[in-house]
Amino acid sequence: MRAVLIHGGRDVRVEEVPDPTLLEPTDAIVQVLVSCICGSDLWPYRREGQREARRIGHEFLGVVAEVGAEVTTVRPGDVVIAPFMWSDGTCAHCRAGLQTSCLHGGGWGEDRVDGGQGEAVRVPQADGTLVVAPVAADDERLAALLTLSDVMGTGHHAARAAGVEAGSHVAVVGDGAVGLCGVLAARRLGAERIMLLGRHPDRIAVGRTFGATDVISERGEGAVAQAMEMTDGLGFAHVLECVGMQSSWETAIGIARPGGTVGYVGVPAGLTDGLPLGQMFRHNVAVRGGVAPVRAYLPELLADVLDGTIDPGPVFDVELGLDQAPEGYAAMDERRSIKVLLRP
Amino acid sequence: MRAVLIHGGRDVRVEEVPDPTLLEPTDAIVQVLVSCICGSDLWPYRREGQREARRIGHEFLGVVAEVGAEVTTVRPGDVVIAPFMWSDGTCAHCRAGLQTSCLHGGGWGEDRVDGGQGEAVRVPQADGTLVVAPVAADDERLAALLTLSDVMGTGHHAARAAGVEAGSHVAVVGDGAVGLCGVLAARRLGAERIMLLGRHPDRIAVGRTFGATDVISERGEGAVAQAMEMTDGLGFAHVLECVGMQSSWETAIGIARPGGTVGYVGVPAGLTDGLPLGQMFRHNVAVRGGVAPVRAYLPELLADVLDGTIDPGPVFDVELGLDQAPEGYAAMDERRSIKVLLRP
Repeated sequence: MRAVLIHGGRDVRVEEVPDPTLLEPTDAIVQVLVSCICGSDLWPYRREGQREARRIGHEFLGVVAEVGAEVTTVRPGDVVIAPFMWSDGTCAHCRAGLQTSCLHGGGWGEDRVDGGQGEAVRVPQADGTLVVAPVAADDERLAALLTLSDVMGTGHHAARAAGVEAGSHVAVVGDGAVGLCGVLAARRLGAERIMLLGRHPDRIAVGRTFGATDVISERGEGAVAQAMEMTDGLGFAHVLECVGMQSSWETAIGIARPGGTVGYVGVPAGLTDGLPLGQMFRHNVAVRGGVAPVRAYLPELLADVLDGTIDPGPVFDVELGLDQAPEGYAAMDERRSIKVLLRP
Repeated sequence: MRAVLIHGGRDVRVEEVPDPTLLEPTDAIVQVLVSCICGSDLWPYRREGQREARRIGHEFLGVVAEVGAEVTTVRPGDVVIAPFMWSDGTCAHCRAGLQTSCLHGGGWGEDRVDGGQGEAVRVPQADGTLVVAPVAADDERLAALLTLSDVMGTGHHAARAAGVEAGSHVAVVGDGAVGLCGVLAARRLGAERIMLLGRHPDRIAVGRTFGATDVISERGEGAVAQAMEMTDGLGFAHVLECVGMQSSWETAIGIARPGGTVGYVGVPAGLTDGLPLGQMFRHNVAVRGGVAPVRAYLPELLADVLDGTIDPGPVFDVELGLDQAPEGYAAMDERRSIKVLLRP
């Protein structure tokens, strides 16, 4: 079968790899219907230098082809959504709803586990990991459902971590796919005012349809000054940090209201100086978040996609065949695309 | 009158200063009955070099001598407790219970405002700041009541920020006065297990009487390993960071359970590298806290001191006259004392 491998900086290739087979009785084999490229895939993509090739991709949705003897919750033919990490669903952390810290789980594309950008995937711990979507393989909502694999659940985690609830005034730092899903999640949780910090007209347009009521396109100190002016000098009680860079963190902390919370999900790959604790200390700004346990959120978000309450599908603005994955990476790297969907 | 002034590194002196007078109609003059030295007073004390002398001290309890024309909630003769920051009690942040971010408040010993270590203090915004304690000037609980000025309210803030509630398993990093009050606060909130990280036998003894059920006296990686072993490898869901040094922060994050919260109140003066966000991210460890709004907590903690539910008084292990303040600073600097109480 074909799959995407990353060989080094700006070097991804679609290559022939062995078909997956069941290795453990808790495995399932999933034929991928749709997968996609994540902003976090760009971190290794942008890291210079050649290195040992490895599978990549951690968001996919597909049809179950085969299950191991101990798998009980999914059957061949089921359309299933895979969260961006696999987990057993039974350990202390999984039971607490934090499947990303599963004691027996892991990530896609690591060790002997397949990446998600390919024609098929061996899924470890299938019962704990996969969620059945009661739809046909040609359902028109597949793109929206695929967002539950990562980006929509991640935006939701930022909003939850920031304590967003009905009536909240919220600021979302970052107009990437996660930030846009953060806007949608905040609206879904009942936020009254949602201020999106972003500067790309196409992304802001999606943000508006997702529920952004205000937009700030300045950056740095200018953005902070504008946010303060919009809030009578008080700042926002709920801030979603959806980028993970030093500058975005400074903005997020800078516009937070004393006693407020920054909910964060941006992989902190670009953070060089650590968090500005002095500033947090002076005004009791809390920081809560991390890698999103999207598996915990999947059932409730799935229900809302199926009944039409939310449609996160528009975060995908480019759709390509698997063979065009290199072009998809380049398009996201060069910001020509918000998020690229891949069909094998 | 006499007051403590800091002239530079390890140079505090008791000197004659002008008696305070009412400057604003919202002021009160308080004759100090007891004040004390804070661990945070040691930061300027330890900073080398001579500099312009200034008043110091931010914890005091006394008798109201005089009030301005607009003061309505305290009267001459009242015994009052002063929080470690003054505040108007009416701005948006005060109304939200975050008086430390008061839009019109400030600290003691700054600008034209007196420090707390002296015979008397002009209290700005007396209505917003002072809390009447219904006791006589010679009440035997004055030491316990004085802790509500800072250290007990600060320990309580750490516990609240960490989300401690009935049945919680809690770790307290630091056996200074704030850490010990954190133990007492955690017990008061119903914690079932309270693990104190500290290595001074006298302090640990106080910690045991305050409610510590376990003690770890190792530091660094050894402390983390022991805490993990005590929790079946899971860590503590509630961690109180009561020191503010790089090493104590590393321990606090290191022993936090995935999805847990570090409540912090240690002034981050010794933190050089910023917070380890990568570690927080991976396991969704939240960080919540900051400068404690003790004014918000004063009424409930006051009630509990008066009815005997808590007695934080034992954090004071040395009592000196105001003239002996230099000896008090030296004793705390050299860790011969947990916390020094001063009587004018």
